Amino acid sequence: MQVKLAKNYGFCFGVRRAIKLAESKPNGITLGPLIHNAKEINRLKEKFNVVVNENIQEIPANAEVIIRTHGITKEDLQRLKQKTKNITDATCPFVTKPQEICEKMSNEGYAIIIFGDEMHPEVKGVMSYCKTTPLVVENLEALKNAKIPDKVVLISQTTKNIELFLEIADFLIRQCSECRVFNTICNATFDNQESARNLAKEVDIMIIVGGKNSSNTKQLYNISKEYCQDCYLVEDYQELQKEWFGGKKLCGVSAGASTPNWIIDKIVQTIQKY
Amino acid sequence: MQVKLAKNYGFCFGVRRAIKLAESKPNGITLGPLIHNAKEINRLKEKFNVVVNENIQEIPANAEVIIRTHGITKEDLQRLKQKTKNITDATCPFVTKPQEICEKMSNEGYAIIIFGDEMHPEVKGVMSYCKTTPLVVENLEALKNAKIPDKVVLISQTTKNIELFLEIADFLIRQCSECRVFNTICNATFDNQESARNLAKEVDIMIIVGGKNSSNTKQLYNISKEYCQDCYLVEDYQELQKEWFGGKKLCGVSAGASTPNWIIDKIVQTIQKY
Repeated sequence: MQVKLAKNYGFCFGVRRAIKLAESKPNGITLGPLIHNAKEINRLKEKFNVVVNENIQEIPANAEVIIRTHGITKEDLQRLKQKTKNITDATCPFVTKPQEICEKMSNEGYAIIIFGDEMHPEVKGVMSYCKTTPLVVENLEALKNAKIPDKVVLISQTTKNIELFLEIADFLIRQCSECRVFNTICNATFDNQESARNLAKEVDIMIIVGGKNSSNTKQLYNISKEYCQDCYLVEDYQELQKEWFGGKKLCGVSAGASTPNWIIDKIVQTIQKY
Repeated sequence: MQVKLAKNYGFCFGVRRAIKLAESKPNGITLGPLIHNAKEINRLKEKFNVVVNENIQEIPANAEVIIRTHGITKEDLQRLKQKTKNITDATCPFVTKPQEICEKMSNEGYAIIIFGDEMHPEVKGVMSYCKTTPLVVENLEALKNAKIPDKVVLISQTTKNIELFLEIADFLIRQCSECRVFNTICNATFDNQESARNLAKEVDIMIIVGGKNSSNTKQLYNISKEYCQDCYLVEDYQELQKEWFGGKKLCGVSAGASTPNWIIDKIVQTIQKY
């Protein structure tokens, strides 16, 4: 089986930066998983004894704590600061940006609308910086029943799809006298999505590698599935099933922003052997 | 011939207000035509001796001057104030709004992008309130070759088409980190456009009544033409040609925001007689 990798895939700037920071703090604790990739989290534990703890109460006083790429809530940050001064902030700078926008804009009296998944840690963190309760929507439909204020700020979870973001922006622009749009979708996400789309058009089967709880990985899967019916999302090579590849000639591979190269390499090698 | 009028058509709030103001200032001078309708301008002259003068230099000292619905440039206003204190501002409040936005936002350092016709008096007026040179575009194509700054404000000429405005907004949102969109398209324009669109879908022939230099009238014509091939733009009943109506059953009529009812009535009566 011939394999073709997407032009852009895998680790983004924010993830690379976070892993470097974590590796520089052996025996550290990350508050929740550093990135959305269980295998890489495991590697950090085995090689650097960097462990995960979701619970601030369990963090020992003055422990070495690393803040995850997705960020944490403003309240959790304050509680954490009371526990320890040894905090390494591995929040992706592209996530810090919407946090700052929410804080500033809600202080200026704008109603905040976030395109994202309110259960995702990044969005939870961003929401916590709003002075007033933001409206979080996963699609245009959710907005249609909402009362829309006259002056709004629109931002996006960094890993969302630009087309859907624009649909929401258009809906708001029609109704509001002022719609202040901050395009907080990160370029790496966008580039990975574009590359996956182009690749999916030319292959017989498409494999997306990444964490199943990873928002950007799921986006890659959904986009690829539109153009290539035989599309599968796997976390590692052991999930691959030989039957998928029967009668296929060319397999496309892309990977989410938190998928390390060592996992992707293993996948590619396995498929090539089929 | 049966005639059906659009649900919304003709005089908007700003035009009605301007005509009332002009009627209350007999012997006044308007700086350029008060509205884009030669017949109504003529009526104001005949009934109220309100005359048009394009040239500030020719305005006598302390004359009674009426500012047109489309507004004038900031510089002209200053020059006018040196000539006379008797100024009646008939600028449509929906035009004053984008003027104020341009002044405030360019002072705050935003690059201003105006969707409109830079030769139109409204746009000339609005442009003059920008501290920096704004980018004026009539369509998305014009923007594609331009250098796009990172923080932009987008506004529209009040009489433009919302769909094209959104195309431009989407293009900017993709590229800019902040795109602050002020929807300055006036509701009357929008309502007239929607009504013309709906009517054009169900009639055999469509007559748009309005000034040939009127932006919003041209929009109505273009929108109607999309849905009804036999579409004509006329300024008054004398331009109607009987041949147009041969073999047709239902004629739709709409009119620009500066078209008075007495002109529309005459048109409708003429068509009904065919």
